[in-house]
Amino acid sequence: MENGSRNRENGSRNVLKPMDSEQLREYGHRMVDFIADYYKTIESFPVLSQVQPGYLHNILPDSAPDHPETVEQVLDDVKTKILPGVTHWQSPNFFAYYPSNSSVAGFLGEMLSAGLGIVGFSWVTSPAATELEMIVLDWIAKMLNLPDQFLSKGKGGGVIQGSASEAVLVVMIAARDKVLRSVGKNALGKLVVYSSDQTHSALQKACQISGIHPENCRVLKADSSTNYALRPELLQEAVSRDLEAGLIPFFLCGNVGTTSSTAVDPLGALGKIAKSNEMWFHVDAAYAGSACICPEYRQYIDGVETADSFNMNAHKWFLTNFDCSLLWVKDQYALTEALSTNPEFLKNKASQENLVVDYKDWQIPLGRRFRSLKLWMVLRLYGAETLKNYIRNHIKLAKDLEQLVSQDPNFEVITPRIFALVCFRMVPTDDNDEKKCNRRNLELLEAVNSSGKLFISHTALSGKIVLRCAIGAPLTEEKHVKETWKVIQEKASCLLPK
Amino acid sequence: MENGSRNRENGSRNVLKPMDSEQLREYGHRMVDFIADYYKTIESFPVLSQVQPGYLHNILPDSAPDHPETVEQVLDDVKTKILPGVTHWQSPNFFAYYPSNSSVAGFLGEMLSAGLGIVGFSWVTSPAATELEMIVLDWIAKMLNLPDQFLSKGKGGGVIQGSASEAVLVVMIAARDKVLRSVGKNALGKLVVYSSDQTHSALQKACQISGIHPENCRVLKADSSTNYALRPELLQEAVSRDLEAGLIPFFLCGNVGTTSSTAVDPLGALGKIAKSNEMWFHVDAAYAGSACICPEYRQYIDGVETADSFNMNAHKWFLTNFDCSLLWVKDQYALTEALSTNPEFLKNKASQENLVVDYKDWQIPLGRRFRSLKLWMVLRLYGAETLKNYIRNHIKLAKDLEQLVSQDPNFEVITPRIFALVCFRMVPTDDNDEKKCNRRNLELLEAVNSSGKLFISHTALSGKIVLRCAIGAPLTEEKHVKETWKVIQEKASCLLPK
Repeated sequence: MENGSRNRENGSRNVLKPMDSEQLREYGHRMVDFIADYYKTIESFPVLSQVQPGYLHNILPDSAPDHPETVEQVLDDVKTKILPGVTHWQSPNFFAYYPSNSSVAGFLGEMLSAGLGIVGFSWVTSPAATELEMIVLDWIAKMLNLPDQFLSKGKGGGVIQGSASEAVLVVMIAARDKVLRSVGKNALGKLVVYSSDQTHSALQKACQISGIHPENCRVLKADSSTNYALRPELLQEAVSRDLEAGLIPFFLCGNVGTTSSTAVDPLGALGKIAKSNEMWFHVDAAYAGSACICPEYRQYIDGVETADSFNMNAHKWFLTNFDCSLLWVKDQYALTEALSTNPEFLKNKASQENLVVDYKDWQIPLGRRFRSLKLWMVLRLYGAETLKNYIRNHIKLAKDLEQLVSQDPNFEVITPRIFALVCFRMVPTDDNDEKKCNRRNLELLEAVNSSGKLFISHTALSGKIVLRCAIGAPLTEEKHVKETWKVIQEKASCLLPK
Repeated sequence: MENGSRNRENGSRNVLKPMDSEQLREYGHRMVDFIADYYKTIESFPVLSQVQPGYLHNILPDSAPDHPETVEQVLDDVKTKILPGVTHWQSPNFFAYYPSNSSVAGFLGEMLSAGLGIVGFSWVTSPAATELEMIVLDWIAKMLNLPDQFLSKGKGGGVIQGSASEAVLVVMIAARDKVLRSVGKNALGKLVVYSSDQTHSALQKACQISGIHPENCRVLKADSSTNYALRPELLQEAVSRDLEAGLIPFFLCGNVGTTSSTAVDPLGALGKIAKSNEMWFHVDAAYAGSACICPEYRQYIDGVETADSFNMNAHKWFLTNFDCSLLWVKDQYALTEALSTNPEFLKNKASQENLVVDYKDWQIPLGRRFRSLKLWMVLRLYGAETLKNYIRNHIKLAKDLEQLVSQDPNFEVITPRIFALVCFRMVPTDDNDEKKCNRRNLELLEAVNSSGKLFISHTALSGKIVLRCAIGAPLTEEKHVKETWKVIQEKASCLLPK
């Protein structure tokens, strides 16, 4: 990068000009081509990286170079050293965990955000960043038909967090401090959190961080009788028991689309219990929220009107590059009372006069990127109707796969598919040994993933090891799903007793 | 985006193909040109956005479009509707807060990271992401000459956080839980945190989140007698008093380069007190850490060997696009004991066998971007020596400005400049009325910033309103600093009593 990057004007050979517009243009074009070529050839890579721990330490130097290297050298290293260690989340054959959608629109938004390079902690540090975020979060709230209380025109509103973990953490802190303000901060040890045992580990982590005592985390059992949804009676019983014991129920997390099996909790019934016990009710729809923009799937968030906060990850299944986790709250002041700081060096007229929202007080970090740009681009370049069809297509592909699985006597579907995740396993053989069956399914998992042809993941439901095929990568088409099923069947046949 | 984005193969008009490599190429090139043109013309924009609160709500529609719009429409809107609401952090005339460096290398890294679209929570989800992060954090630790205990080969290591706020939060949680494991979790109300009153508000926020009682946050006064550094005696007194009262000192935050005035605490002396009281010692060098790669500035982190954790923001003054906050710890297990979760759906061989680092357990969120790419690109495309000279150049420009200020009888330098921040103010007039003087300096601030020609910010030191000119934007040259000083003098002359 020697050329063009030195300050020629003052003759000083050693002063870098690190943001030369023509160099940005030249190298930027080169990087665009590199990335476009990557997508063109993405199916040629093993989906799950096949490297061994420590591989990169063995091939990179021990210290940073003293002098500039060229873009060619770096891109060569990306190809030969980095890409082998990449697990290709954007591959059409990536079916693990949940998808993390990239898209042309999302990518353009990330580029523009990186290009403008603003840090939008307060309104004044770039008014457009705050205002566009409020606007697009309102847009999506309307697409989801969320109650008006979640819109920014009143005391509610939406905000972009980095992840669902941060979303549940900030509302838990808000809820915690709200309760402690009235009962006194020494009562922390009495606060109780409720959720089903299907809830994402992000909740447990939020409890750890906010200091909720582990013995006050009620992890309520959900089983196949409700397709792993939380039974309201179970919640009511637990709450009553805790109240009798002098504890303070303060937080309930409901799920729409759990990570293991897309279970949907009965929001309305749960919310009623939360309300009558003055608990904060958070709804985690990180994955499945996206589907609820389709009228035919909106039913799965029925009851959201009883929630205090609602979360959906646009970076999962909504074509907006990671990270972009959308959180709506009905009471922004609960957040800002818990998370505000007001140092002199950040004071400014607009904030002091309460004319604006300062998102720094809605989140953990101070700084924030201009993430609303990519969401806005996705909405504008694709449009709501196209996005609905995008979701519907994945659900249709998952439906087809579910049928293929159920037609194979060596396999069974575990829990009925609701969205685009298919949970299945190889059935136990004659001896009906569940342990052996679990082991065999883990062997199958290992066999298909180490083939490099696809990547699926697993979970456990009621002690059964279950394989998860989550359809939702932006490039996935019917042929990929069919081929994936063929590979799984082939690998399974090698594991079956002769 | 109608063209190319539809699935033509199956004839379904309504199925989007959102990641078409040729469309990415075409639109990506267009966006590169847009951003390169932005940098070419960046000096033509008012540095601080001059819009009024609510401006964007008035010009954008109330709901998302149903159907796709074109890239042209969106880029037009960026120009006419978004850019007026942008405060131009990358402008050579941006001197507010601290810089947030973008660079060609950092931008390329962000592009590549967005292009690969991986989510690197566990090693297995992209081994290269974890390993490259460990490697480049080791590289920079060596550039800073940090003690070996901070390197990844032992039980220490570095990690990229989103912000200094997250860095101090995770180490505080680690320290909190370490103490509570030995004294019992009901002792939370006894834990005490120490820092000078010059410490960033991120510390206060970390205390709020982790549940430290506000009355146990010792905010120790620092004044001009030490150039706003914390006096060790003051710390020792406070600790002794708290111990006598039966409280538990557990966390000390030291500063290298405070936000208000770049004050540097005496790390060695503070660390000694921390150590002898078994407190966690965190060093916040978010801004000034970058300078310490130069041998002549390394002295400012002397004593870092007594610290448990050290933080420097590569996104401030190290040419790595926001966000990229570097945190090193000596004991990674303190972090992972506090922040680990281990749900079935994330289990994998490499993690279970303890062969790898899973950064999800070193941070608040689960998901994480491939942020080490941009840091790696900065290090390789510029090289260590060039980076040192980049820093030195800004410090030289600041030195020059400091001299200009001190030569003007209407102004005074407040606290001697150490790095590239100059703290100054208009002096009080004859009546020596400090209140009037503060008001006049705020008027000056308003006058220069509303000119659009530059953006500086302010702080308060010992009750005095102080103007801050932080030199460090990647495009800033001598001429910009000179012109800025001229504008400040001009605006000041209008405010002086005739």
